[in-house]
Amino acid sequence: MSIGVFDSGVGGLTVFKSISEKFQQVDMYYIGDTARVPYGNKSMDTVIKYSKELANFLISNFHVDLIVVACNTASSYAIDYLKNNLTIPVIGVVEPGATSAISITKNNKIGVIGTQATIKSNSYANILRALSKNGLNVYQKACPLLVPLVEEGKIDHKVTEIIVKEYLDEIVDEGVDTLILGCTHYPVLKPLIKKIYPQLNLVDSSEAIINYIEKIGINKFEKGIRNIYVTDESSSFEILKNMLIGDIPTFKIDLDSITKD
Amino acid sequence: MSIGVFDSGVGGLTVFKSISEKFQQVDMYYIGDTARVPYGNKSMDTVIKYSKELANFLISNFHVDLIVVACNTASSYAIDYLKNNLTIPVIGVVEPGATSAISITKNNKIGVIGTQATIKSNSYANILRALSKNGLNVYQKACPLLVPLVEEGKIDHKVTEIIVKEYLDEIVDEGVDTLILGCTHYPVLKPLIKKIYPQLNLVDSSEAIINYIEKIGINKFEKGIRNIYVTDESSSFEILKNMLIGDIPTFKIDLDSITKD
Repeated sequence: MSIGVFDSGVGGLTVFKSISEKFQQVDMYYIGDTARVPYGNKSMDTVIKYSKELANFLISNFHVDLIVVACNTASSYAIDYLKNNLTIPVIGVVEPGATSAISITKNNKIGVIGTQATIKSNSYANILRALSKNGLNVYQKACPLLVPLVEEGKIDHKVTEIIVKEYLDEIVDEGVDTLILGCTHYPVLKPLIKKIYPQLNLVDSSEAIINYIEKIGINKFEKGIRNIYVTDESSSFEILKNMLIGDIPTFKIDLDSITKD
Repeated sequence: MSIGVFDSGVGGLTVFKSISEKFQQVDMYYIGDTARVPYGNKSMDTVIKYSKELANFLISNFHVDLIVVACNTASSYAIDYLKNNLTIPVIGVVEPGATSAISITKNNKIGVIGTQATIKSNSYANILRALSKNGLNVYQKACPLLVPLVEEGKIDHKVTEIIVKEYLDEIVDEGVDTLILGCTHYPVLKPLIKKIYPQLNLVDSSEAIINYIEKIGINKFEKGIRNIYVTDESSSFEILKNMLIGDIPTFKIDLDSITKD
C-alpha cells in the first residue's frame, strides 16, 4: 500500500505527518509545488491544471494506491475533477473537515476560515449543507494574511492577534461554537485562537482525514518509505519541514518534467 | 519603438505607468506572471527560468525593442542572464535605483529593503559598491510581510506600522539617510514610512528607471499601444491594476504556451 500526498507548498506536511504516524507501514510520497506556491489567490482553472500535474507525478513515478489532496484550495477547486479523471481513490481535506465539524457542533453554527480561493469556492459550505441532517448555519471568512504571518513565524505575535481578531470577531459574534481551520497553515495558530476565543471547538482536517483513510483498508508491511519532493528549492520549506516533521530529506524535481501533457 | 515590461504580478505596473506617462508615443506591452506569483521566496534557477519565458513571450509576440524587468527579484537574479542571452537591450530596476540613491545620500549610508530573494542576492549592495566613488555603508533588510500587507490593502493600518518598525528600526538606527524601496509593492507605503521616519530619503525605482530609458533614445509616434497580459486570471491583479493605472483591459494567456522551449 502506498499513499501520495500533494500540496501547494509546505503546509500539507501536517497531513503527511498525521498519516505517517497512524499508518507507519504504508509507503508515502509527498510533493510540494514550491515553484508555483501559493494557490490561495489563483483561479480555478489554474489550480485544477496544477493539481492534475502533481497527481500524475505521484501516480506515474510511484504507482501510489491513493491520492491525498492536502491543500484546502486544491481540495476546494480540483477534487471533483480528480475523482472523475483518476482511476485510483482521491481524498481531499474538505469532506473530512466538514464531517468532523458536524459531529462536534452543538448549536449547528459552524465557522469556516481559509484562503480567498477556498472561501470563494463555497466548498465547505456546500458539503456541510449536503452532509447535515439538521439545518446548519455556516459563516465563512477568507483570511489571506494568516499564511504569510505563519510562514514568517509570527505565531504568537501581537500583529497576528490583531489580524485574527479583525478576521474572526464578526463570525464569532454570530455565535459559532465550531470553527473549521480550512487551510493547512492554520493549525499552528490553534493556541492563539484558543486564547482569544476559548469557547470555540477547532477542527483540524489533518486529524479528521485519518478516519477516511482507515475506511479504505491498509495492508501491513514492515516499515514504509517516506519521500518528499518539491518543484523548487526553498529555504522556508526546509525550515518549516524540519519544524513539522524533522529531518526527512527533500528532493527537487524539474517543473518542466511534470507540466508536459 | 516598443517596450516590453514584465513582473511576477501586479507591482510592476508602477514602472509601466511611469514609462507610459513619460513616453506616451511608445507602444508598451506588460506581462504579469500571476499563475506563478510571487517570486520573492523562489530560487535563483527558477526565477531565471521564469524571467526567460516572460522575455521570450514579449519578444516573439510583439518584437519589442527593449525589455524592462519591473520586478526587483527578477532584476536581482536574472538580469545578467538576460543581458547575456537576449539580442535587445534589457534594463532592470536595481541599477537605476542604486544610481539614484548614490546621487541622493549625503552621509553615504544607504538602506535597502526587498524580498528574501532580492536581499539574499546582494544585488543592490554589489552594484552600490561598484558604482560609488566614495566608500559606502549599505544596510539591507528582507521585509517579506510587506507584499501581502500591501496586497490586502493594509496601507495605513496599525499592523503595517508595527511590522515596518520591526523591520526598519535596526537599519534606521545605523544612521541611514537614504532608503531604496527594492520591491515594486513598496512605493504605496511611502506615506507611512515618511510618517515614521521623516528624515529618510526614499528611492523609488519606477521613477529612477526613466533616466535610463531616455539614454536609449525614443522615436516619436502619434500614440502608443498599451496592452497588459497575465498568466492567470486574478481578481487582486484587477483591483490593484485599476487602482494603479485605471481601466486598461487585461488579456489572459496560456501558461503552457510560454513554458515550452
